[in-house]
Amino acid sequence: MDPATETATGAIEATPIRASEEELAAVSYNADGLVPAIVQEQGTGDVLMLAWMNEEALRQTLETGRMWYWSRSRQEYWCKGETSGDRQWVRDARYDCDVDVLLFVVEQEGRGACHTGEHSCFFRAFGSGATPGPV
Amino acid sequence: MDPATETATGAIEATPIRASEEELAAVSYNADGLVPAIVQEQGTGDVLMLAWMNEEALRQTLETGRMWYWSRSRQEYWCKGETSGDRQWVRDARYDCDVDVLLFVVEQEGRGACHTGEHSCFFRAFGSGATPGPV
Repeated sequence: MDPATETATGAIEATPIRASEEELAAVSYNADGLVPAIVQEQGTGDVLMLAWMNEEALRQTLETGRMWYWSRSRQEYWCKGETSGDRQWVRDARYDCDVDVLLFVVEQEGRGACHTGEHSCFFRAFGSGATPGPV
Repeated sequence: MDPATETATGAIEATPIRASEEELAAVSYNADGLVPAIVQEQGTGDVLMLAWMNEEALRQTLETGRMWYWSRSRQEYWCKGETSGDRQWVRDARYDCDVDVLLFVVEQEGRGACHTGEHSCFFRAFGSGATPGPV
């Protein structure tokens, strides 16, 4: 954990990001109004997960400093870690050359990013002998 | 560059990955038959880009050890760096818990991954004062 983001009581602090309306308007969403958001861990550089955001989730993420997504299966907003405690604190928010992919650098709290308890959702490799399929 | 992948003549070597048919069959594609592929640089951990693969591009990537994508705009396969020289050599190929996102760790040759000449496509951050919009 970056000591700069820890308060005197040891709680992790949110560091909201002030994006301009011009920046927000430049983001290119797909036909469903969604943009993929890659999540990378601060410090380790580990790629933790990819989830989807609509414009409202992106605004919420930047304003609150916590990762908000749009669940395509549940058709609802979710704030990562709200129930599990595995919160993600935004430290940097980037966009690619086509402005159709986002990259967030986060401080990952709790066990990790994956619902399985793994640190990263990418815990299996092709050719490794791991059992394939969704978990 | 990892010296282990360099030949006596200094050329970079491809390291194909043997995936099983069971692993390949487990990958979940979207309605267009595509899956997002995140590309991360070996060593630095930099997230370089995200592009899309169909099943054929994934097979080609694993078999040749070079990154192959499906271009949605041009509706054709492309092998990264074939014209620019900015080749990507696969060193690890991972999949997420839902098996609907792929993560490739690559050795990036040339200037970098971005068509602009930047090392990473994510060279701009929200709130940084950079000019937004596609480049």
